[in-house]
Amino acid sequence: MFRLTPLLFFKSNAVKIALAQINYHIGNFAGNVSKIVTGIRNAEQAGADLVVFAELAVSGYPPRDFLEFNDFINQCSDALEEIAPHCQKVAAIIGLPTRNPDKKGKPLHNSAAFLAQGKVQHFTHKTLLPNYDIFDEYRYFEPNRVFNIIPFKGYKIALTICEDLWNVQENPLYTINPVDELMGQKPDLLINIAASPFNYRQTAIRTDVLRRNAERYHLPLFYVNHVGAQTELLFDGGSLVMNGRGELVDELTYFEEDFRVFDLDEVNRLAPNYQPVLYSEIEVIHDALVMGIRNYFEKLGFTKAILGSSGGIDSAVTAVLAAKALGAKNVYSVLLPSRFSSSHSVDDAVQLAKNLNMPCDTIAIEEAFRVFEKTLEPFFKGLPFNIAEENLQARTRGVILMALSNKFGYILLNTSNKSEAAVGYGTLYGDMNGGLSVIGDVYKTQVFELARFINCKKEIIPENIISKPPSAELRPGQKDSDSLPDYEILDEILYQYIELRQGPKEIVAMGFDEALVKRILKLVNANEHKRYQTPPMLRVSSKAFGMGRRMPIVARYLL
Amino acid sequence: MFRLTPLLFFKSNAVKIALAQINYHIGNFAGNVSKIVTGIRNAEQAGADLVVFAELAVSGYPPRDFLEFNDFINQCSDALEEIAPHCQKVAAIIGLPTRNPDKKGKPLHNSAAFLAQGKVQHFTHKTLLPNYDIFDEYRYFEPNRVFNIIPFKGYKIALTICEDLWNVQENPLYTINPVDELMGQKPDLLINIAASPFNYRQTAIRTDVLRRNAERYHLPLFYVNHVGAQTELLFDGGSLVMNGRGELVDELTYFEEDFRVFDLDEVNRLAPNYQPVLYSEIEVIHDALVMGIRNYFEKLGFTKAILGSSGGIDSAVTAVLAAKALGAKNVYSVLLPSRFSSSHSVDDAVQLAKNLNMPCDTIAIEEAFRVFEKTLEPFFKGLPFNIAEENLQARTRGVILMALSNKFGYILLNTSNKSEAAVGYGTLYGDMNGGLSVIGDVYKTQVFELARFINCKKEIIPENIISKPPSAELRPGQKDSDSLPDYEILDEILYQYIELRQGPKEIVAMGFDEALVKRILKLVNANEHKRYQTPPMLRVSSKAFGMGRRMPIVARYLL
Repeated sequence: MFRLTPLLFFKSNAVKIALAQINYHIGNFAGNVSKIVTGIRNAEQAGADLVVFAELAVSGYPPRDFLEFNDFINQCSDALEEIAPHCQKVAAIIGLPTRNPDKKGKPLHNSAAFLAQGKVQHFTHKTLLPNYDIFDEYRYFEPNRVFNIIPFKGYKIALTICEDLWNVQENPLYTINPVDELMGQKPDLLINIAASPFNYRQTAIRTDVLRRNAERYHLPLFYVNHVGAQTELLFDGGSLVMNGRGELVDELTYFEEDFRVFDLDEVNRLAPNYQPVLYSEIEVIHDALVMGIRNYFEKLGFTKAILGSSGGIDSAVTAVLAAKALGAKNVYSVLLPSRFSSSHSVDDAVQLAKNLNMPCDTIAIEEAFRVFEKTLEPFFKGLPFNIAEENLQARTRGVILMALSNKFGYILLNTSNKSEAAVGYGTLYGDMNGGLSVIGDVYKTQVFELARFINCKKEIIPENIISKPPSAELRPGQKDSDSLPDYEILDEILYQYIELRQGPKEIVAMGFDEALVKRILKLVNANEHKRYQTPPMLRVSSKAFGMGRRMPIVARYLL
Repeated sequence: MFRLTPLLFFKSNAVKIALAQINYHIGNFAGNVSKIVTGIRNAEQAGADLVVFAELAVSGYPPRDFLEFNDFINQCSDALEEIAPHCQKVAAIIGLPTRNPDKKGKPLHNSAAFLAQGKVQHFTHKTLLPNYDIFDEYRYFEPNRVFNIIPFKGYKIALTICEDLWNVQENPLYTINPVDELMGQKPDLLINIAASPFNYRQTAIRTDVLRRNAERYHLPLFYVNHVGAQTELLFDGGSLVMNGRGELVDELTYFEEDFRVFDLDEVNRLAPNYQPVLYSEIEVIHDALVMGIRNYFEKLGFTKAILGSSGGIDSAVTAVLAAKALGAKNVYSVLLPSRFSSSHSVDDAVQLAKNLNMPCDTIAIEEAFRVFEKTLEPFFKGLPFNIAEENLQARTRGVILMALSNKFGYILLNTSNKSEAAVGYGTLYGDMNGGLSVIGDVYKTQVFELARFINCKKEIIPENIISKPPSAELRPGQKDSDSLPDYEILDEILYQYIELRQGPKEIVAMGFDEALVKRILKLVNANEHKRYQTPPMLRVSSKAFGMGRRMPIVARYLL
């Protein structure tokens, strides 16, 4: 017996931990339970001792104000009851909201249930509750104040939930560090269950934060994240394992469900040879958006999209992403030319539809536009053509697209980009319509990058769409550059203001023209009322319009 | 000397405290500073020793994510510097955000500056940070953990900020009570500066909470609230003074700016003979909505409103409220009849405009509607008239109203009620358009009450508008009751679900039909995507759609 190599010896006694990276659906208890039970069964079949699911797996994340409904919390605990009997041979860690038994404080905890032998053995609660950007956890949850490791097969698990590992920054957001509290009990490993939303720079930050924890505590770390889209929030997965030296042992797939089993002793002992694949920012944005569209439709039970195809780059990129997400035959491209549309715009849009092999129709808006002009003539009192007539065209298009959407059950995709949304360069109830904004968190310069990325192997988007100067084509010879600075400059200023929260003084100090900076910042703030009414925008940046950026509408700051 | 009566003796030595109830404007530092300096000057002239302003007076409340901008915080401290020299003879308490000097925790405090002798003497920070409904304070602020009374002219002031007095409920939301912490230092009076938003049941709750504090600590209480509207949030004012027996000494005006001076010793000594006026719920809703419209326009720098007048009760009530807020001549009422509009609807709408003496035009939508039908005919493939054509009419109206709005600088008022918004009975980009929703937080049954209240002295709204059965008039003979239950039943179910967060089981247990309850709750949840794109709704209830009710769009709860 003692002739066995250490490798085999350790292997046979080792604890095996499965990570289940799942795309949950908020409030779909039957669906989530079914996926969790399948995960438990898979873990059992793979000979795992423990299977780890994500934060708030049972309810989906974020359940938002559903958490205020007793009925919703009851359904969460009922779901856990349903899952528990499946944990006979394999233990499981599963996130869900639970009631705070203390009558003081918020009524809930954000918890991790530890299930074994068919029963809930422990609950661990989240200590650090993120309450910034898209996070509202202190709205619902009382923080944990009691710290206990979980004993399991002779090992001690330091179990934490997402943000609990994040207080390792230079300027810590919290006055306590939960793992520090647990270290007195000498844990053998860290397990963290998370719901960590994607942005195109977040993966590197997240990996670094996790590495700091593994290094600081000299403990292996098993990390399970959500994957999939919840309306605008995108979860990229990337669940991972690190050893106690902070070396990456393995990562689960990005943007897809995944399941893997790890041997704890191997993780501890072997030098990892895993080399993470490095993707470009544009590539991950691309993959995130495709997933975002696909999940939005799937989870709502829709299959078909409609969009207005102008021959411009925004609608072209949106069409390609939608075709990848839903299949080209399910994306209905409608050209809505007006008297101001250039012939190349129409040709380009037709060519795009051909390249993609998507259904395409042309519905001229001239007649409807003219009737509106005539109807309004007695009331417009001879005033010159202005923004009212420009918007009228965009709104006429919006009416036609919505009529088709209502008649046939398409979801209208919004094709506005972040630069436009920022400065209000778009028509409310016109081109700002849609059930989902695909590129509303993608600056115009990034839209160009996306187009080039899409075309890198083959010209899918006609080159002319990428190379011609952007135009809304709402009056003769109009170009975006008539009313906006070059997008390179605009986007840089917007990025400083929106993502980095720099004020006018700081931005001017970077070398931008003062009058321009003031004008841009004023436009951003003055158009809050428009953004209030836009569709949800797939979030790919660290600061997207929507739930993570909460601004007053009636205000006078920088105006 | 010792022959002086105690009354005169106390009076001559008494501290006089002024309460300044002001309508601030978020981010309008010049405007807010000017109002605060005027308040200080008024206090000085009235012989007051101390003048108290509201929570976050300098920035306006709620500044929301402007708080994440260093520049914004700098402007707050600059404003305080500008105010301080005015506090020579009179001291002042003024709310503003300040930086947390500790590098751990959130970067800001929600503070009250105590100014005297031309300088800031103390800062007191808020301990209990509301983070529910419309409140997001833990998003920005680190709670206070140090408790000190403020000495002033021989008195000790226990100064707290809004929520700090609210932990006196049966199930306390917080684990600490700031006034308990201060009581060891034997304060002589309580001062609380607040930003406590209105709802039609909140005033009584607030007064009760304040009374519990005065009674519990046997201390007089000086309470200063905001007044005025900040987009959807309405502040009713009602600043007040209580004696140490919890008796109401005086209340400042509701829904208006006000300023009063109180003698501390008189407050302590005299039995108050103040009798608060009791207003009906409908009356306060009415006054709140009028203020909400008025402030929205004033603070945005607009004077004129436009609305679609259908001859129905929703647009009628909205028109009356707008006329009261802006003056009838500034409210442009547009009738947009279709082939399905009944003649009485047109007559009723015309009569309403006459009664109010507001400008009114009729713009038939038939021609535009017909062109859309014709344009879409080849694509609709002979499918029968359905919701697509119904919405088409509403959207055609929306296009015309927005064209007039764009041409002449009107703000379009949305006229949807809360019952409709709840079940999705409205057309996105059609009748759901608008810069501001006036009655979006008012159930249909309450809209009827408002109409009766408006007509109580004189028939302003033609009786036929109130008495006829509600109809959207989008197909022949249509009535709301074709697709919805009686509003009495619908509103009761909605109130239980929305305001009280009762689940289906609880509501059915109240005696409502199970199938109906399930259908209604499903409609509410399935229409989250529509409400996401509605204009801000003036908030009059304890749970309005908008910033205080945060629901996932893609979810499957109760669907």
